[in-house]
Amino acid sequence: MHSSSEASSRSPLRLGLLGIGNVGQSVFDVLTRNQDEISRRAGRSIEVVMASRRNLAAAKPLADAGVRVVADPADIVRDPSVDVVVELIGGTTVARDLVLQAIANGKHVVTANKALLAEHGTEIFDAAHKAGVVVAFEAAVAGGIPIIKALREGLTANRIQWLAGIINGTTNFILSEMRSKGLDFATVLKTAQSLGYAEADPTFDIEGVDAAHKLALMSAIAFGVPVQFDKAHIEGITQLDAQDIRYAEQLGYRIKLLGITKRVPTGIELRVHPCLVPSERLLANVEGAMNAVVVQGDAVGTTLYYGKGAGGEPTASAVIADLVDVARVGNSSALERVPALAFQPDAMVPTPVLPISDVVSAYYLRLRVSDEAGVLANLTGVLAKSGISIDAMLQREAHDVSGQEGNQTDLVMLTHEVREGTLDEALAHIQALPTVLAPVVRLRKEELA
Amino acid sequence: MHSSSEASSRSPLRLGLLGIGNVGQSVFDVLTRNQDEISRRAGRSIEVVMASRRNLAAAKPLADAGVRVVADPADIVRDPSVDVVVELIGGTTVARDLVLQAIANGKHVVTANKALLAEHGTEIFDAAHKAGVVVAFEAAVAGGIPIIKALREGLTANRIQWLAGIINGTTNFILSEMRSKGLDFATVLKTAQSLGYAEADPTFDIEGVDAAHKLALMSAIAFGVPVQFDKAHIEGITQLDAQDIRYAEQLGYRIKLLGITKRVPTGIELRVHPCLVPSERLLANVEGAMNAVVVQGDAVGTTLYYGKGAGGEPTASAVIADLVDVARVGNSSALERVPALAFQPDAMVPTPVLPISDVVSAYYLRLRVSDEAGVLANLTGVLAKSGISIDAMLQREAHDVSGQEGNQTDLVMLTHEVREGTLDEALAHIQALPTVLAPVVRLRKEELA
Repeated sequence: MHSSSEASSRSPLRLGLLGIGNVGQSVFDVLTRNQDEISRRAGRSIEVVMASRRNLAAAKPLADAGVRVVADPADIVRDPSVDVVVELIGGTTVARDLVLQAIANGKHVVTANKALLAEHGTEIFDAAHKAGVVVAFEAAVAGGIPIIKALREGLTANRIQWLAGIINGTTNFILSEMRSKGLDFATVLKTAQSLGYAEADPTFDIEGVDAAHKLALMSAIAFGVPVQFDKAHIEGITQLDAQDIRYAEQLGYRIKLLGITKRVPTGIELRVHPCLVPSERLLANVEGAMNAVVVQGDAVGTTLYYGKGAGGEPTASAVIADLVDVARVGNSSALERVPALAFQPDAMVPTPVLPISDVVSAYYLRLRVSDEAGVLANLTGVLAKSGISIDAMLQREAHDVSGQEGNQTDLVMLTHEVREGTLDEALAHIQALPTVLAPVVRLRKEELA
Repeated sequence: MHSSSEASSRSPLRLGLLGIGNVGQSVFDVLTRNQDEISRRAGRSIEVVMASRRNLAAAKPLADAGVRVVADPADIVRDPSVDVVVELIGGTTVARDLVLQAIANGKHVVTANKALLAEHGTEIFDAAHKAGVVVAFEAAVAGGIPIIKALREGLTANRIQWLAGIINGTTNFILSEMRSKGLDFATVLKTAQSLGYAEADPTFDIEGVDAAHKLALMSAIAFGVPVQFDKAHIEGITQLDAQDIRYAEQLGYRIKLLGITKRVPTGIELRVHPCLVPSERLLANVEGAMNAVVVQGDAVGTTLYYGKGAGGEPTASAVIADLVDVARVGNSSALERVPALAFQPDAMVPTPVLPISDVVSAYYLRLRVSDEAGVLANLTGVLAKSGISIDAMLQREAHDVSGQEGNQTDLVMLTHEVREGTLDEALAHIQALPTVLAPVVRLRKEELA
């Protein structure tokens, strides 16, 4: 609808999905749902033309949408109608063959397969370099967080000194639960499995292997060294005692499974293990299945990147970001590959900015009132008449409040969401009440959830 | 030294610095200090060839380094030896003229000037588009945090729903101090000024104008709309009462100056104001002069970006990231613009990965010991002999520890930094002591500061 004639006239980027599981389906769903917005950014459309699934019947939704579904992914990597292959099969054998074949056939590859790149990255990146194609893997590390882009493009000025990350959601969920509920590892692992946060065979996660795969990739990018997963020191959380989590807390620390890579004068440290982190660090406060990576650069200092490290749509977000990068490279003017304002200049949309009176928000109100009967009823009556409901209230007696008369009190309220104009009208009425003794303080409140 | 023959044979990107203040000097310093690493990433070197400063004498360090220093920045924007102009003059008049002249002369522009782009962005981006040059401005928003890149490239799959940021370090420092020390605004402002966190005329910061400049840029990129600073609703923190910070805290909230832009069915919200945020959110825990931006996308969910929002080197980090982007665009193969592993394939450095025994770390130790005289002296004696010093200790009496004999106790220690191999040798001695009754638990500890 908004896509410009210029953008839509460019040839689409044609995509083949190797594997239609949770992530593959999400890639298709997000590309479909946001196709207009994505085209406006990329300067051309991105279309799924082929997809593979052993069970053809299960791929009916894609087939119904016009995608050519095949049982054998090898059919995709050799099909001339495919520009980019998205590898979501997993594992390091079949996936490796398919990726190398796709590269040999001149196709770009986008993959979420950390194990593949951690173990065969050198071979695959070499092949891609020689073939002049892109192998992109934002989705392989920390799900939807654009940490590969940050390291590879955002922090290029820096000599990176170290990075440390919570890069496995399963183990972070388990550690969060062990701490907050005082439970032991085995009990929480069962909960995590029943909630889908841990797989039936959780070995790769709980033994730290998955984190080490991701760490090896980040280390290579941070320091300009080859991917060296085989040299990583790896410890998981299976031996971690709940008692140590408690003692650590008493000393002001939390225990997280961290991937750490550090540059020291004699070489590089590359290690995954449980680690005490001061409780006041943001990283220590990353809870549940969330991921976060802290990067220390000599110019920028400390930066941190936080978000969902797994799941269909967060992973699809990263896969599609890589696809947009590939699509943009193909645009006519290399210099305008990435538009200054993210969207192609001919695809900007004039959208009204709302006046503040039309903004809907929750509010904090503080009223200095006479400490007499009926005051609260009056106030809440005015608010109720405007449809404004109270979420929480605090009353502070006169003796709590410095420098005021003895017969005054502070009423502090949090409202539910209301249009600002409506609230301000109600507050004008309230301000006029003789029992309201000072200008009402009004602040906005956002849950940011 | 490490720069490859291939990289060094490509022509350098030649840079003209308009203004050599704190940021300009830092750009020069970081480019010089990290030139090897930056060239390995960019595929070519980035050289400062010209710089302008009214006071020529003060520019002596650059002149001594071979930079052609001129008094009039207009000499730079018309000089054929300059490929990219870095505008660090500030303001919206002279800077606007210089940027438009540079664009007209076919030069790319990198700027940290949020006011300029917030007020004249439409004109400047139009001119750049027509001239086929890049105008890059990562440094204009949130200092060294690569938030522009995240929004413009990292989250392109998403329909962005809202973003909220602490994007002014001065006001966040003031609010942090007001809360932690219970002081009022005027008192803390004076402290901030004496520490250099607030300028002599702090109006733009404390009235929210600086945050609104940055917010208008992020809003445009997030939603594909023009830069609309003139329509932003702006409130600062000058009217904020310390009492409301205390009441908010009692209700479970902290007050931050936020820039918020949100997509709603009828348009876009664009507003800067003090705002209550739940205390448990990471954003609420961003303290001092640090910045952070939370972005909510429909596929990725919540992501957060954190780092230093100001200062010479953090800002230089962002300026140079933009320069590397420009340098990479000029590389021969568009497809390899950004190398898969960040560094050019011919510029990888083989660096040893250290064995874990050579890693230096601090440690948490838990020892189950006999509760008798001399035990602690024995233990600390062994540690001291290996040069291992204790940072903190916790002793838990037998009755605190579930399921153990009455004459046992837990000793928990934090060590200072020590080589792991050295520690493990000492622990082998300790483990052999008859008073040590169970395997010693050893966990690593990182301050991440």
